[in-house]
Amino acid sequence: MRTFNLSDYLLQYLDKASATPRNRQLYRLMRQAILDRVLPADTRLPSSRDLASELSISRNTVLYAYEQLLAEGYVEARAGSGTYVADTVPDSVHLPVATTQRSPAVAETVQLSQRGHRLVAQAGASTQQWGAFVAGVPDVTQFPHKIWNALQSKVWRKPPIAALTYGHGGGYQPLREVVAEYLKVSRSVDCEAGQVVITNGIHQSIDLCLRLLSDPGDVAWVEDPCYWGARNLLSASGVTIRPIRVDAEGICPDEADLAAVPRFIFVTPSHQYPLGMVMSLARRRSLLEYARRHGCWIIEDDYDSEFRYSGRPLASLQGMDSGERVLYMGTFSKTMFPGLRLGYLVLPQALSKPFVTGMEELHRSGQAPLQATMAEFMGQGHFNSHIRRMRLLYGARLEILQQAIDEHFDGSAVHAVGSDAGLHLALRLPAHCDDKSQWK
Amino acid sequence: MRTFNLSDYLLQYLDKASATPRNRQLYRLMRQAILDRVLPADTRLPSSRDLASELSISRNTVLYAYEQLLAEGYVEARAGSGTYVADTVPDSVHLPVATTQRSPAVAETVQLSQRGHRLVAQAGASTQQWGAFVAGVPDVTQFPHKIWNALQSKVWRKPPIAALTYGHGGGYQPLREVVAEYLKVSRSVDCEAGQVVITNGIHQSIDLCLRLLSDPGDVAWVEDPCYWGARNLLSASGVTIRPIRVDAEGICPDEADLAAVPRFIFVTPSHQYPLGMVMSLARRRSLLEYARRHGCWIIEDDYDSEFRYSGRPLASLQGMDSGERVLYMGTFSKTMFPGLRLGYLVLPQALSKPFVTGMEELHRSGQAPLQATMAEFMGQGHFNSHIRRMRLLYGARLEILQQAIDEHFDGSAVHAVGSDAGLHLALRLPAHCDDKSQWK
Repeated sequence: MRTFNLSDYLLQYLDKASATPRNRQLYRLMRQAILDRVLPADTRLPSSRDLASELSISRNTVLYAYEQLLAEGYVEARAGSGTYVADTVPDSVHLPVATTQRSPAVAETVQLSQRGHRLVAQAGASTQQWGAFVAGVPDVTQFPHKIWNALQSKVWRKPPIAALTYGHGGGYQPLREVVAEYLKVSRSVDCEAGQVVITNGIHQSIDLCLRLLSDPGDVAWVEDPCYWGARNLLSASGVTIRPIRVDAEGICPDEADLAAVPRFIFVTPSHQYPLGMVMSLARRRSLLEYARRHGCWIIEDDYDSEFRYSGRPLASLQGMDSGERVLYMGTFSKTMFPGLRLGYLVLPQALSKPFVTGMEELHRSGQAPLQATMAEFMGQGHFNSHIRRMRLLYGARLEILQQAIDEHFDGSAVHAVGSDAGLHLALRLPAHCDDKSQWK
Repeated sequence: MRTFNLSDYLLQYLDKASATPRNRQLYRLMRQAILDRVLPADTRLPSSRDLASELSISRNTVLYAYEQLLAEGYVEARAGSGTYVADTVPDSVHLPVATTQRSPAVAETVQLSQRGHRLVAQAGASTQQWGAFVAGVPDVTQFPHKIWNALQSKVWRKPPIAALTYGHGGGYQPLREVVAEYLKVSRSVDCEAGQVVITNGIHQSIDLCLRLLSDPGDVAWVEDPCYWGARNLLSASGVTIRPIRVDAEGICPDEADLAAVPRFIFVTPSHQYPLGMVMSLARRRSLLEYARRHGCWIIEDDYDSEFRYSGRPLASLQGMDSGERVLYMGTFSKTMFPGLRLGYLVLPQALSKPFVTGMEELHRSGQAPLQATMAEFMGQGHFNSHIRRMRLLYGARLEILQQAIDEHFDGSAVHAVGSDAGLHLALRLPAHCDDKSQWK
């Protein structure tokens, strides 16, 4: 005798037009009925032959569903008497059993943690990552993807075992070496390959620094205005942000700022983000000496200094730092393309080992074929020639943009700043001009 | 008149055999001398012609160095009277200037933060990621890299712009779709593409959950024994770990455990790590009901359930969860290869949007060409056939290993557990046997 009209229930919900195979559908429907206690424990199921005939489907379909339910413990076979819904509440452990009705508070609200809420509430990443007036995005249509494809294919032709398993040690060694060499020559960064950790980009580099060097409540100076990403990562890590005014020479702490020693100083010395000025040498020396005396960490975000259109690029702050208080970071997002997701972090000697370990624990490493391709791309000179080519192109475009600004705006009221370098420039608007209402 | 014998100093350190060009060397030596105050402010530099002749090098070499120093503000040209070392301490800001001697405490000890120290001190990732008896690593020599290379080359032949710029939204959409479909069919996961977030693997997935849903001091149940990575990520996030005994049916909380409601329950229901048992249906239901009643989050780590050698794979815990308390995670590290660094996180509907945002803020997204290749690999059926092939291969190897264990050990004293599934098995040793002293 059956206590529940199983075949009616199944006929009602089996969808013959569905892409899901009939046997999977059957299994799921019966499982749901058991979970919902529509089919209570100890219910005897019809024989597979009977059920198949009632549903006008093949017996194998039913057998599949029964076997799956059996294997998962939803039903049990009793010798000589058929298949029964299992009693799935264990005797050994008396876990409290909830009523079937859920608390509306649980079901209807999203319960992020406090730090999770901060991370999401202050999110700055735009959903638009391509097109006119999107700052910080290179012209990826110019990327020599044929060269890249050829190098990558070559790497993949005979990938060594080590390239396919987990990595360890801060990135693919030949890439660390070629990055160290590049940074020495072009950015006067003072480093060896062992100090370079390959990351997914600036955000991951900042996050890694905060995971290893910060505790909640620590204070960080940021430039005012500063990069939204740095601000949000700091805040999500529980670090207290102190915005510091910038002037034409860069970050410019006053007496009160200096009196409250921070643990971190976030700066963009080569090309202030977003205003574009270069930090003066005097300011650099003062900052280094302050950090050295007080044991602060300076985080140098050197995100787009490769594109300098007038004057020579200034050497990195890191290269001036005999005291080893500077953590230097850069990205291939601007020089190559953002979707690559590769960047680098250069650490003081004493921090290299713990950072490599931290990276491994937080994210594991790998991606050796990608990093090998990047190492080849740099080693064969394609990286430098791409940068040279793009510098000319962006320089020419900048000139056109500047001319248009000069032509269409009143130069005494509206002028561009930060046009010496980088992938964007900033317009200073007159005081009466609302910078938000013009835009959607 | 010159106050310092510059040319002697330079002759001493200029290295004619070095790969670094002479002009760069000259620039760096002079910069260092200025930074070290060996060349103090207001020192007049020799003319480029004089210095070149004293060093027996070309005048252009000297000019390059001077111009670089000039551009960076280390020296300044005074009209009509030559080039002088600049006074680099600014008047406008009186930053405290440290003595040149550094505090030994700063220079010689590594100052990690408390959470950074925890992360590094408890590190579990082995430097050996390949070879016999390395658990959790697939046989990457069997990966069909020719097929992969061909698919990847095709993706790169004409990459769309969106593939090269920053991504947004939880991963490359076609990959999210094919992963959702795969998980529905093969793991009975109840999800749509919008609930799938592509990550770099299990570690990043766990970390993302903790960044969004935990605050320091929250409590998490973990299985005892459990996966080292989960334990360390929890601890590094400031979450308090409560180890819960496992028995033959999986996690087995006692009355005291149940009384102290945790925020998280970390489990490996399909194949307990490392012991290998499957969580019973009864235990699953109890756990879900407990989580639902108390608003706990269950993190289901389904890391290698694809490789089941006997019986059918059990459906995922997530698929039983109408209460939406389960966050499901899996990885391509075992089914493809670890160096790929791709995994997936399946979220309750209400959490999808904040998690996508959180991922974007913490790591930015991209890697569309890689994810597109993966989507093609799955869409064309290569993924499923690779799993089938590897399941047979691993099954055969497991049999050989079991036979060897049976042959060489006394079965009453030493026996293997967890041999139904996965990439490893565990040996239970007799009580008198030291499990560490035998190994280096």
